[in-house]
Amino acid sequence: MADERKETVGVGLIGLGVIGTGVVKVLSRNADVIEQRLGFGLRLVRVADLDIETDRGVDLDGIHFDRDASALIADPSVDIVIELIGGYDVAKGFILEAVAKGKHVVTANKALLALYGKEIFALAAEANVDVAFEAAVGGGIPILRSLREGLAANHISSVHGILNGTTNYVLTEMERTEEDFEVVLKRAQELGYAEVDPTFDVDGIDAAHKLALLTAMAFGAELTYKEIPTEGIRGLAPIDFEMAREFGYRIKLLGIAKCRRDRGGNERIEVRVHPTMIPAGSMLASVDAAMNAIEVRGDAVGPTLYYGAGAGEMPTASAVVADLMEIAREIRRGGAGPVAPLSYMPDHLIAKPLVPLGELRGRSYLRFTAADRPGVLAHLAGALGDQGVGIESVVQPRGVEPGACVPVIVLTHPADEEALRRALEEVDRLADVMAPTLVIRIEEDL
Amino acid sequence: MADERKETVGVGLIGLGVIGTGVVKVLSRNADVIEQRLGFGLRLVRVADLDIETDRGVDLDGIHFDRDASALIADPSVDIVIELIGGYDVAKGFILEAVAKGKHVVTANKALLALYGKEIFALAAEANVDVAFEAAVGGGIPILRSLREGLAANHISSVHGILNGTTNYVLTEMERTEEDFEVVLKRAQELGYAEVDPTFDVDGIDAAHKLALLTAMAFGAELTYKEIPTEGIRGLAPIDFEMAREFGYRIKLLGIAKCRRDRGGNERIEVRVHPTMIPAGSMLASVDAAMNAIEVRGDAVGPTLYYGAGAGEMPTASAVVADLMEIAREIRRGGAGPVAPLSYMPDHLIAKPLVPLGELRGRSYLRFTAADRPGVLAHLAGALGDQGVGIESVVQPRGVEPGACVPVIVLTHPADEEALRRALEEVDRLADVMAPTLVIRIEEDL
Repeated sequence: MADERKETVGVGLIGLGVIGTGVVKVLSRNADVIEQRLGFGLRLVRVADLDIETDRGVDLDGIHFDRDASALIADPSVDIVIELIGGYDVAKGFILEAVAKGKHVVTANKALLALYGKEIFALAAEANVDVAFEAAVGGGIPILRSLREGLAANHISSVHGILNGTTNYVLTEMERTEEDFEVVLKRAQELGYAEVDPTFDVDGIDAAHKLALLTAMAFGAELTYKEIPTEGIRGLAPIDFEMAREFGYRIKLLGIAKCRRDRGGNERIEVRVHPTMIPAGSMLASVDAAMNAIEVRGDAVGPTLYYGAGAGEMPTASAVVADLMEIAREIRRGGAGPVAPLSYMPDHLIAKPLVPLGELRGRSYLRFTAADRPGVLAHLAGALGDQGVGIESVVQPRGVEPGACVPVIVLTHPADEEALRRALEEVDRLADVMAPTLVIRIEEDL
Repeated sequence: MADERKETVGVGLIGLGVIGTGVVKVLSRNADVIEQRLGFGLRLVRVADLDIETDRGVDLDGIHFDRDASALIADPSVDIVIELIGGYDVAKGFILEAVAKGKHVVTANKALLALYGKEIFALAAEANVDVAFEAAVGGGIPILRSLREGLAANHISSVHGILNGTTNYVLTEMERTEEDFEVVLKRAQELGYAEVDPTFDVDGIDAAHKLALLTAMAFGAELTYKEIPTEGIRGLAPIDFEMAREFGYRIKLLGIAKCRRDRGGNERIEVRVHPTMIPAGSMLASVDAAMNAIEVRGDAVGPTLYYGAGAGEMPTASAVVADLMEIAREIRRGGAGPVAPLSYMPDHLIAKPLVPLGELRGRSYLRFTAADRPGVLAHLAGALGDQGVGIESVVQPRGVEPGACVPVIVLTHPADEEALRRALEEVDRLADVMAPTLVIRIEEDL
């Protein structure tokens, strides 16, 4: 692979969609600064995409451009393969094909890595090549490098991330305009902030993919995407934002991962994605629109936070090209980089037990949808009290139109999730309760 | 230097003060996670300090501890030398002695690097050793790595940093308590947030040292510490915070560096440290107490921000040990790391002309100290108008005790710094004006 005499390192790009086009732009427009930092150049020698017709507004003169990804991977002038087609099987196939040919790989494919990372990284280590993926989490934010190297001397205790720009945009807009979820989502789709099928984003799946990678890197825990309890933002209504403001909170879809040591020194991982109320004055609460931010706490460094655009053509391309530059340096040195891709050496990346959701403890915001008749509050309070869930405050919002249904808002004292779950099962069976209760967890310590 | 067979990499520490003690703690308490991430251990083999009597509450059993820094540097079991004594001549001597002996160096000494970095890095490159300094800017925040690697594919356009924890603590407290600067500073000194001699912090010198390093790394500009226009926070009064709040701003001591390209494509650097009003809703405005944050904008990535503790025993030690880990990996590979210390290859780290302060253009907050008599405002407005400085609004704060002196607050329209300077010279000569006018620049676009 290494050829010390070459003036440039050769790059092949599979997938000329939005991000791929951004990569072409960055490599061309910023060739000067890339070379000034590296001491040599990166050269895009080949691009493969099924669509070779559409004009992407980038100049591909002198670059071999066809549909043949396998030929790109086999091309001896390609030292690093960029995979930007997304999805599972085909992308995985190309990545493993590149690895088998001794090519380094850069990808932004969080879904693939969250599910198949273990296998992919093992094969890459065997082949002595890098699989780099800074762009997979937080777009252009160098969060993975920071976890892997900048904070490497720390026992990480927690990660709290706004990991999905689409949902943060929708939440910010719902708060600002006091409109319903569906109205705001539709506008986000028209503006290109949300996909036609928004499921991956609004149901928290994309955030969970990213959280799986962060959790592994923070705690040396095996990738556990499938086990991450995940709730999206579909259930939220304008009144929840109004109440949050009154209580001094903002609502964010957070990916949360914490490491807890029991008395025997054994580590257990607490991990989940859900809408969360966080103090309005916290750094994370200031993160608006489609921006992302990740707060990471370490035992030495304390709280740190990383903020930036979590998606989009150019920010994501910024991260892809940063990975290319790092790998290109390693190619000059004749091998793969010395830093473990998931931050811990493979034999220290071990399965760590998850804390069952029921054991979590915290305060919650509850919105009951109750019949507007006397005695309802007593029934609700009774059901909560039966399970030991203490009530901190109850609010019956003003300005609600009189009718059969009214919202009743309860802030609980700290309670076990299991007790809360049992209480809500009981509540939702009450004749007075007209719809499932909405729960938003409160994270106080941010 | 490299010895592939060694189980651990040997570390020598010069300077067992607050940060040095933190490094001993991190290396010992976090030895497990350090080894799990590296695949091998770091071993502190030797410590040198003039004071070998004081108990620092750390266990130095089995570690050679004496006053002899030169013997430490010469010790063949020491692969990496940590310099944490601070100051100029002695520290520089030890660093160059280590470099001459082929030892890698880790330092937190921003003052030294801002002044003598060019010489030090050149000698290190010649000797094929690393001089790492993540701890020199932003304490535990991995900001230098992020600039050097995470954002390496970008033309950086601006850096805005809250770079000094002491001043940010004082500003936050002045805002919260509405007390005078001297009162808050005294409390900060009692609490250990400020030094007995606070000059380096409150006059902006420490921030300017850090800004010099950031500017070099962001723009490939030679270190220019001595040329950075620097104003501290001594002139601020409680009324300034009250006014800032009314106008929707917060006051922060910012280090600001921007890169401007003229029509010929030539780059000029705008760089300065001064108290600044920034929008209350911006991320930087949310940074309170002794925390630091740096906002960096790149042409591909857009705005990004990095937040954390900018000083203190353990956060700074976190950065020092991160550098040790990176260098230790390189030692295993037989040389220095491939990344240029100031982000650009030495031949691309060139002197770039500074934009003269007078050419800067922006809005300003002015606090005049005027005699309480009729016609004063007309004189002030006249002096500003004569120089073409437009007035956006004038406020005569309520609740001021009647007397000979009153504050008059003016927000200007965008104006050239040079015009403003001339106007203020004229104003401060007016018989009605009883004290020099306070200027706080406004940065709108954050």
